[in-house]
Amino acid sequence: MEMVDLIVKKRQGGTLSAEELQWFVRGVTDDSLPDYQVSAMLMAMFLQGLDESETALLTVAMADSGDRIDLTSVPGIKVDKHSTGGVADTTTLLLVPMVAACGVPVMKMSGRGLGFTGGTLDKLESIPGFRVGLTVEEAVAQCRRIGAVIMGQTGDLCPADRKLYALRDVTGTVDSIPLIAASIMSKKIAAGADAVVLDVKCGNGAFMKTLDEARRLSASMVGIGKAAGRDVAAVISSMDQPLGSHVGNALEVAEAIDVLSGRTAGDLLEVAVTLGAHMLVLARGADSIAHGRQRLMDHLRDGSALEKLRELIAAQGGDPAVCDDTSRLPTARVVRALRTARDGFIGSMDTAGIGHVFVRLGGGRLTKGQPVDPAAGLVLSGRIGDRVRAGDVLVSVHGATEEAVGQGIRALETCIRIVDEKPELPRNVLEIVMADDVS
Amino acid sequence: MEMVDLIVKKRQGGTLSAEELQWFVRGVTDDSLPDYQVSAMLMAMFLQGLDESETALLTVAMADSGDRIDLTSVPGIKVDKHSTGGVADTTTLLLVPMVAACGVPVMKMSGRGLGFTGGTLDKLESIPGFRVGLTVEEAVAQCRRIGAVIMGQTGDLCPADRKLYALRDVTGTVDSIPLIAASIMSKKIAAGADAVVLDVKCGNGAFMKTLDEARRLSASMVGIGKAAGRDVAAVISSMDQPLGSHVGNALEVAEAIDVLSGRTAGDLLEVAVTLGAHMLVLARGADSIAHGRQRLMDHLRDGSALEKLRELIAAQGGDPAVCDDTSRLPTARVVRALRTARDGFIGSMDTAGIGHVFVRLGGGRLTKGQPVDPAAGLVLSGRIGDRVRAGDVLVSVHGATEEAVGQGIRALETCIRIVDEKPELPRNVLEIVMADDVS
Repeated sequence: MEMVDLIVKKRQGGTLSAEELQWFVRGVTDDSLPDYQVSAMLMAMFLQGLDESETALLTVAMADSGDRIDLTSVPGIKVDKHSTGGVADTTTLLLVPMVAACGVPVMKMSGRGLGFTGGTLDKLESIPGFRVGLTVEEAVAQCRRIGAVIMGQTGDLCPADRKLYALRDVTGTVDSIPLIAASIMSKKIAAGADAVVLDVKCGNGAFMKTLDEARRLSASMVGIGKAAGRDVAAVISSMDQPLGSHVGNALEVAEAIDVLSGRTAGDLLEVAVTLGAHMLVLARGADSIAHGRQRLMDHLRDGSALEKLRELIAAQGGDPAVCDDTSRLPTARVVRALRTARDGFIGSMDTAGIGHVFVRLGGGRLTKGQPVDPAAGLVLSGRIGDRVRAGDVLVSVHGATEEAVGQGIRALETCIRIVDEKPELPRNVLEIVMADDVS
Repeated sequence: MEMVDLIVKKRQGGTLSAEELQWFVRGVTDDSLPDYQVSAMLMAMFLQGLDESETALLTVAMADSGDRIDLTSVPGIKVDKHSTGGVADTTTLLLVPMVAACGVPVMKMSGRGLGFTGGTLDKLESIPGFRVGLTVEEAVAQCRRIGAVIMGQTGDLCPADRKLYALRDVTGTVDSIPLIAASIMSKKIAAGADAVVLDVKCGNGAFMKTLDEARRLSASMVGIGKAAGRDVAAVISSMDQPLGSHVGNALEVAEAIDVLSGRTAGDLLEVAVTLGAHMLVLARGADSIAHGRQRLMDHLRDGSALEKLRELIAAQGGDPAVCDDTSRLPTARVVRALRTARDGFIGSMDTAGIGHVFVRLGGGRLTKGQPVDPAAGLVLSGRIGDRVRAGDVLVSVHGATEEAVGQGIRALETCIRIVDEKPELPRNVLEIVMADDVS
């Protein structure tokens, strides 16, 4: 097989065969294909597209490019969850303990924040002592013992994805629906999941800006699951405003604990329960979505979900007492308020803009490997549609210096628009895409 | 400027500015841009296209990437000529002496054969002693003295084109009209031409298979000339059968000498005279195409064109006596005939297939740097539409061994189709594209 022939085939809009895609992924993995041919192929794939079958074949070849984690020693159907990334999106910290409290084991590999989106690992590391770097053996043992793990990616999972992503990043081929779908799903398959619930964010604080794009990405990933023998459900939820009220590392842990303690509720809990109910249904831990929601709320109300988080934190070396006293989490030296200039309603939010303020406060990072400030971030006092009066606190900004906080406040002024008329309230959950919905 | 931003701009169908294209070509030339970004850009250019203005800007930036040859010391308007490559296409060996005999100096840089097309340098080197490797100083001095030079590319002409072509060759981005046009025209501009006549071949023995493709390439190159201040005319001629009757190195030199001696005429002379007449008009050496044709034929008939070839061969170290006795050229050890199996008419020819037989006989090459056999090749006895009778010689095949010649004969049997009805005769010159024809 000659790489140039494969490139020409895709360039002309042809359909690559299983053998051709496997050969391509092998060549990427063992570095036998030069980068310049791989990047020409990626651009041809970007512009000519990949059909459903090609996308699924590419995904499985990528999943096979490195280790596959064996979860067979953990009893039951293992359900993984993935979010495409948002702002104030702490669903993982709610979901893992809630679903585990229902008796369904969850071994979740999470990532770090990059750009305007936060990362679960960064959030957990704000808990004193918490260790995300488990070995596969440690993680499987913990999952068998307490049914819940949140950890960093481990082992040599999907080296082909790592190499392809690094090239896509510098060759303008990142935002291709089939390539994004293959990248996400290859890692989920290699991580050993039997089923996957996808949290596909859509809106001005997400990578998918429109419902149409989010639908296409969802359908692509659900289709890959179908082709690869994995039950997959995608929940498309709005990211036209931050999901929770807290944007930050320690701040989001505190919000998760508040929710699991029953002290607060709202959109964050609603989206988490929707995702969790789908996880329970896929894992045969509930008969229906309604049943799943009921079970999750029962375990929240009886304190067993918070207890599960406490167990998880203790198992991974963290201080479980944060679950009873969130003031044990790191706090910022400077906290200042942005107040409303006039009466009105919160009309809209520039969600990615709010995420960028969080990054500039030091909570997030622009390039891989940068350290983050566990305490930096912001807390929103209201949501779209809320009435505000001149002088009300709109946002509390948490940072290390007066200067940083002052800059954050000024930047936030343009991120939140106050209007005279009460706007239509955005829906939380926009659409669900399941295996039966895709051809 | 960030390369990834430029790639995304082109990927989305945007128009690159002069500054962006110059920056890109500089980065290619000085190797500051990694190959994987250049190849992603080439694929984006391939699939999204380049408009006329971008193509012209890219061409001039490529022409400026290395040396430019200064022909100002040669008096008059310097007209260059380029062929996109064909089979039995010896027009350069006719044109250079004929146009020079009319008093218009021609300094022609030619190439070597690759794949099914022959190369002028390989043909000339079949003349004992002929030297194609002139320095620019030697070439300019010869051009001033006798008005005619045929030489290899010299100096550091268009290094950006060399690098881009090497990448295109291995990334499936060769056959893009704007990239082909920019590659050809950048070299012509760097080689110092004031005007260029393009011989655009079209048909089953050419890179452009259809008249539409040939028209688009012609329009693109004429448009580049217009934007870059060069007079350019493109002659689209048919390559649905070999242009001359001789396919080979020494064989084509012999055919050129036969034509310049007035012993044979036909399609090869007709196309050469059409091209030459356009060269004369662009160089103000004729008032009209008809006048140009007249002048060229006058100089052929009075022997001055052959005399100019004799001078050129002598000036470049070759044996000028070949002009009087073509048997001084290398001859093949084995010559065998392919004969017609039945009565009929020559219906069609697989011209590229005939070119490949020439390569396999040793006359051409598949990869750069391979040596070629000066004597190998074939001579066709007829053209499309000619009546043949069973047992007539259809082709004489010239090679080094019985085995090679036998294989050549068998391969040729499938290249020439004999039909019962006299077919429509193909036209030689299909279309002319000049500056006034493009917007």
